[in-house]
Amino acid sequence: MIPKDHPRYRSLIARERLARCAREGIVALEGLAAHGRGEAFDYLIGERTSESAALAARTAAAMLLSARHPVISVNGNTAALAADEIAALQKASGADVEVNLFHRTEERIRLITRLLEEHGVRVLSGTAERLVPLAHDRALSLREGIGDADVVLVPLEDGDRCAALRAMGKTVITIDLNPLSRTARTATLTIVDELTRAVPAITVACASLSPGEGERLIASLDNIYLLRAAIDEMRERLSHALE
Amino acid sequence: MIPKDHPRYRSLIARERLARCAREGIVALEGLAAHGRGEAFDYLIGERTSESAALAARTAAAMLLSARHPVISVNGNTAALAADEIAALQKASGADVEVNLFHRTEERIRLITRLLEEHGVRVLSGTAERLVPLAHDRALSLREGIGDADVVLVPLEDGDRCAALRAMGKTVITIDLNPLSRTARTATLTIVDELTRAVPAITVACASLSPGEGERLIASLDNIYLLRAAIDEMRERLSHALE
Repeated sequence: MIPKDHPRYRSLIARERLARCAREGIVALEGLAAHGRGEAFDYLIGERTSESAALAARTAAAMLLSARHPVISVNGNTAALAADEIAALQKASGADVEVNLFHRTEERIRLITRLLEEHGVRVLSGTAERLVPLAHDRALSLREGIGDADVVLVPLEDGDRCAALRAMGKTVITIDLNPLSRTARTATLTIVDELTRAVPAITVACASLSPGEGERLIASLDNIYLLRAAIDEMRERLSHALE
Repeated sequence: MIPKDHPRYRSLIARERLARCAREGIVALEGLAAHGRGEAFDYLIGERTSESAALAARTAAAMLLSARHPVISVNGNTAALAADEIAALQKASGADVEVNLFHRTEERIRLITRLLEEHGVRVLSGTAERLVPLAHDRALSLREGIGDADVVLVPLEDGDRCAALRAMGKTVITIDLNPLSRTARTATLTIVDELTRAVPAITVACASLSPGEGERLIASLDNIYLLRAAIDEMRERLSHALE
């Protein structure tokens, strides 16, 4: 039991939920450490959505809505932390959802699919094929899912796979708290924000883009600018940290 | 197998060891996330001991050597990552070692005590009492250990407990990669460095302080200066991140 008066209650609760999902086999042990790395960067951006992240989320909404076939790629951490939020985004954007894992086992695919479905997500099923140019099981995707997608939203992605999806000509939107990561720098669009803040922000934007706003956001997308803005936020916060 | 010449060899080995210890019940699953958080900050300080961290380690040595009763408080992550290093520091400093856990179970206390003893650490035993002014089992300590200590070295501490120990009038030395954490700001002395670099640095300093150096280091201790120096390192590294 984490005491409710603990100042980092919310962060500790998220950590506890991931730990529980790790015990159930939904989250990989490596996913717990990866989550911790994200927490540190979230700390540095003040555990809130910055202006540039909000702009990125609106741009992501525009890209999902204008896609021929948008797909959201969900891993264990994403399912554990944001199953409800993914369900809402799926409704708002019309995107397909595919479970895609770094530490892939059929058992984990099954557990994560069930968890998502319990929260109202419609999950693509089928036989995964080696569609992504990568060694090992990260190559596996569904032909009618990521294989066919023009726009892929991949929260909490690994750098290799992000690069491979880009090399396949896909537009990749990622949610990554580390603006220095290879994923952040390789994606078409990077939302530097925490998952359970970023996904609802995209969902809200899907319903509130004004006429013509989507085209303007996409036309003016500059991912390096967004990353620099996030880094500047972190530097700024660091400089006032001890005041 | 991680190749020895991998630029991030130490970091990858540490992660692997921690995951193994989590499977064995030594490391709490929550401890994996905490470790990931440290990794992010270590990345930002360039995965090396800064000049200010080296100064902090020498000051820590001086404080341990001049204490009436120094105690090193060891948790699961510390035992998993640095059992040998703790054994060497115990020899060099004469400090007692007490196992003290955030996610406390008698089983984990037993496993961690055994691991430490296998690496040559003498571990205090006895019946823990509610000595620290905190809700829940984090209050539990040994009367003849942390209860009696004037100086406590608590690597990887949580902020609440650090504050509670300070409120009890104890001198608290912490090793924390996050210079913004409540622990870092509440401790008497914070070494912003990775555990397996920081502990040996204290050990080496214990054997090499020159006459009068310890008193001078303690007299000139300025923890805010040390934290600022670590923060400046991180800001500098961030500013060149996208080059």
